[in-house]
Amino acid sequence: MNRYPEPLVKLIESLKQLPGVGTRTAERYAFDMLNWKPHRLIELGRLTEALPSSIQRCPECGCIADDHGCSFCVHSRQQSGVLCIVASPRDVFSMESTGEFKGLYHVLDALLSPMDGIGPNQLKLEQLKQRVEKYLIREVIVAFDSTLEGDATALFIKEELETLDTHVSRLAFGIPVGSSLDYIDGGTLTRAFLGRNKL
Amino acid sequence: MNRYPEPLVKLIESLKQLPGVGTRTAERYAFDMLNWKPHRLIELGRLTEALPSSIQRCPECGCIADDHGCSFCVHSRQQSGVLCIVASPRDVFSMESTGEFKGLYHVLDALLSPMDGIGPNQLKLEQLKQRVEKYLIREVIVAFDSTLEGDATALFIKEELETLDTHVSRLAFGIPVGSSLDYIDGGTLTRAFLGRNKL
Repeated sequence: MNRYPEPLVKLIESLKQLPGVGTRTAERYAFDMLNWKPHRLIELGRLTEALPSSIQRCPECGCIADDHGCSFCVHSRQQSGVLCIVASPRDVFSMESTGEFKGLYHVLDALLSPMDGIGPNQLKLEQLKQRVEKYLIREVIVAFDSTLEGDATALFIKEELETLDTHVSRLAFGIPVGSSLDYIDGGTLTRAFLGRNKL
Repeated sequence: MNRYPEPLVKLIESLKQLPGVGTRTAERYAFDMLNWKPHRLIELGRLTEALPSSIQRCPECGCIADDHGCSFCVHSRQQSGVLCIVASPRDVFSMESTGEFKGLYHVLDALLSPMDGIGPNQLKLEQLKQRVEKYLIREVIVAFDSTLEGDATALFIKEELETLDTHVSRLAFGIPVGSSLDYIDGGTLTRAFLGRNKL
């Protein structure tokens, strides 16, 4: 049986590194790219190659920064007394889209996951503690996914910060806005019930 | 609200060209790529940029070729008297995986689709007719997807080749091997019934 030419095999292997992309999808992408105009391929190739140098991470908070530095480590946010811990730089933009939060961020880049070899030492919590003390943070808001890893990491952080003079809170669980009770799983409904608020 | 830095916005836009990839998925890919090791990014970038030069298309059949030329336009296949028309270079590998077909291929690169501006003139049928005559093709096998576009193009090709001394056949429709009747749609079952074979 004829196999794909070598450059195509390599491209497919490389595309399989994308999250959720298996062999079938990678093949579909690669064959689609064969029909792209060369200048489009060159553009994507160059953007990909340049990524490590074009996008920097703020050494302090871990958010993504551009040539003008980190737009989140500014004086007003440092004075806010609030710090939000997120798992990835992308979550920072999700939080920003609420328009409600005006404090500092702290990107962990990982959640506790023993299966993937990520233990407490990979979480860089020393830096977090230093920032909490330096900026006199009153409240640390944990904004993780509602997963096993998110739950474990949130509890772990609460314990780690217990010795410091700060409160730890977590995003509320409940019914997504605009959704119908019919479609909500029991776990979510239980959390929504237990966390009910006075009207 | 903070927006993504410019290089990230451009990368997301570029990734959205992949088939079935919308803004959300492109963002997910781009943010995942931020965590890739630089040498992996450079590898993917270079493979992407090099695609137009590393993968050539056979000028005769449209299959993908490598430095050693087209592995499908060989003497034994040219003598076979059979030619299989497919919509994309990828379909050639699907056909090859059956191990049943030993004839020539002809890649159309498009199916009739008035909505996308693809009419009869985009199908390069002159080249097909020339090959059918040159290689004394007895049977032209149409191997298209079972879609509206596939059906229309198959019928159109049948009409176009009517003046030539060749038969036109199409892949059989029916029950996928290993599947249960419970899960098969009515259209497929109808085709399987109408095309029933003597045991």
